[in-house]
Amino acid sequence: MVKYLFTSILGNHVFDNNFNLVFTASSPAMKKDIIPLPEKHLSRVLAHFRDKKYFKDFYEKNLELTSRSLRESATGDVLIIQAINSLEEAKKAVNMLAKKAREWYAWYCPELLEAVHDDEKMVEILISANKEQILKKLGRKESIGSPLTKSDIEPVILLAKEIRSLYSLAASQKAYLDKLMSQYCPNIAALAGSLIGAKLVEQSSSLKRLSEFPSSTIQLLGAEKSLFRHLKTGSRPPKYGFLHEHPLISSSRKQLHGRIARVLADKIAIAAKVDYFKGKFIGDKLRKDVEKRFIK
Amino acid sequence: MVKYLFTSILGNHVFDNNFNLVFTASSPAMKKDIIPLPEKHLSRVLAHFRDKKYFKDFYEKNLELTSRSLRESATGDVLIIQAINSLEEAKKAVNMLAKKAREWYAWYCPELLEAVHDDEKMVEILISANKEQILKKLGRKESIGSPLTKSDIEPVILLAKEIRSLYSLAASQKAYLDKLMSQYCPNIAALAGSLIGAKLVEQSSSLKRLSEFPSSTIQLLGAEKSLFRHLKTGSRPPKYGFLHEHPLISSSRKQLHGRIARVLADKIAIAAKVDYFKGKFIGDKLRKDVEKRFIK
Repeated sequence: MVKYLFTSILGNHVFDNNFNLVFTASSPAMKKDIIPLPEKHLSRVLAHFRDKKYFKDFYEKNLELTSRSLRESATGDVLIIQAINSLEEAKKAVNMLAKKAREWYAWYCPELLEAVHDDEKMVEILISANKEQILKKLGRKESIGSPLTKSDIEPVILLAKEIRSLYSLAASQKAYLDKLMSQYCPNIAALAGSLIGAKLVEQSSSLKRLSEFPSSTIQLLGAEKSLFRHLKTGSRPPKYGFLHEHPLISSSRKQLHGRIARVLADKIAIAAKVDYFKGKFIGDKLRKDVEKRFIK
Repeated sequence: MVKYLFTSILGNHVFDNNFNLVFTASSPAMKKDIIPLPEKHLSRVLAHFRDKKYFKDFYEKNLELTSRSLRESATGDVLIIQAINSLEEAKKAVNMLAKKAREWYAWYCPELLEAVHDDEKMVEILISANKEQILKKLGRKESIGSPLTKSDIEPVILLAKEIRSLYSLAASQKAYLDKLMSQYCPNIAALAGSLIGAKLVEQSSSLKRLSEFPSSTIQLLGAEKSLFRHLKTGSRPPKYGFLHEHPLISSSRKQLHGRIARVLADKIAIAAKVDYFKGKFIGDKLRKDVEKRFIK
């Protein structure tokens, strides 16, 4: 008498030829007289599981599987994506607030803001020196700013202190991202830097997908907006996306930008595949290959 | 012999009838034989000042006047506008970062974020308790989140600490704004609250201009976008702008919103005039007038 084997998420079920359940086992029980269920009988077996007593089992098993896959999904990808997102938000926040602090302090001592254009430095000076000290340092005698009372300046100083602490948060998040990248994508990081590398991973939503992209796609990651504008209106196509921030590109002549971006994207495509398949570290070699071609 | 008086920013110049400068005085020197310069001779007098030796004087006097007016312009208006702007930016920053912290921590312990919807509370718990303590408090045994290492959780905690400190910055900026408003616009503040009041001042760019607005304009301040959409496309006109956040409106039935906004705007228009001309404090009375009509 032949028996049928049917596998569900609950385990391996063995049915007799009248489609009554004989037993359920967690390990596959392939014996001579047990054959896989032929497809034509599938509906009869499924009818069996329509019995309400199985609903709870299915529900619980499903929940368990979902939470397990959720638990296992927080891999390097997720950590990198969260870290780069939060770093970018922190940078945005710091820029917004520094702009406000600038505007605000400009009523009191415009000379400082005229002389110091770097926000981080401006904030440091604003916290550590008072107006007289600042003017003296700048070689000015008088300020054209309004004389504000101490209680009107305190809120700006408080804001500046918050900005300083946001700068140090961003720095520690950058350090964490560097660590993550050198752990999960050492080759991409060595070639593109951890910031650009993380943005590439984030935009492709995983290292796996990034490793599957052709280099032409990698070259344009981050330039989606101008790419679609190009496709829609026929404006000039973009030459690079995130890669634009790469020191090799930003430090070279404008005419070379497109060519360097193409070569860089080629090598990053290789680096991504090596990183995904956990190959040997060849990031330094790849970087030197690019540098050799463009730095004389 | 008649002499002509001509006034420039340098002072009062007296010319003889050959248009030679006789003397310059800072106080107006109206004597019998000195008459204001007739307009037809203006070009001859101006030609006199085209001499290069005056250029430096004009330049310096101009600079002095500009810096004086700049110095005097940082009045209550400017302080209020800077304070409300920076408070709004701080709130925006805190929301952005809290959203990121939520997303990030959700990989580790989604149970917390499901149970606690208030960002400030979430941040407090995230800082003060570890995963086991959080689960225990929520009456859960297991988490479906990923088990992250300590070094992967630390960056989220750091972010949360920064968010907490941004919350306290926003609180101290709110307190400063309250102080400013009760000093410069006590009536508006009593009627509309210091946040809405400051937004009204900011949107009108000064208390003076706000005090000149009719109440219908005040009612719609902050609703510029939908007002112009209404004018352009014929969509429904807005009923209120910033006033929408007023507790009297947000706590009452939707059908009443428009009417309360109109009455509030009426009273705010009065309060703004009283504040601008530094009249007596009638804010409480105005507020009670509005409340009487709508709270039974």
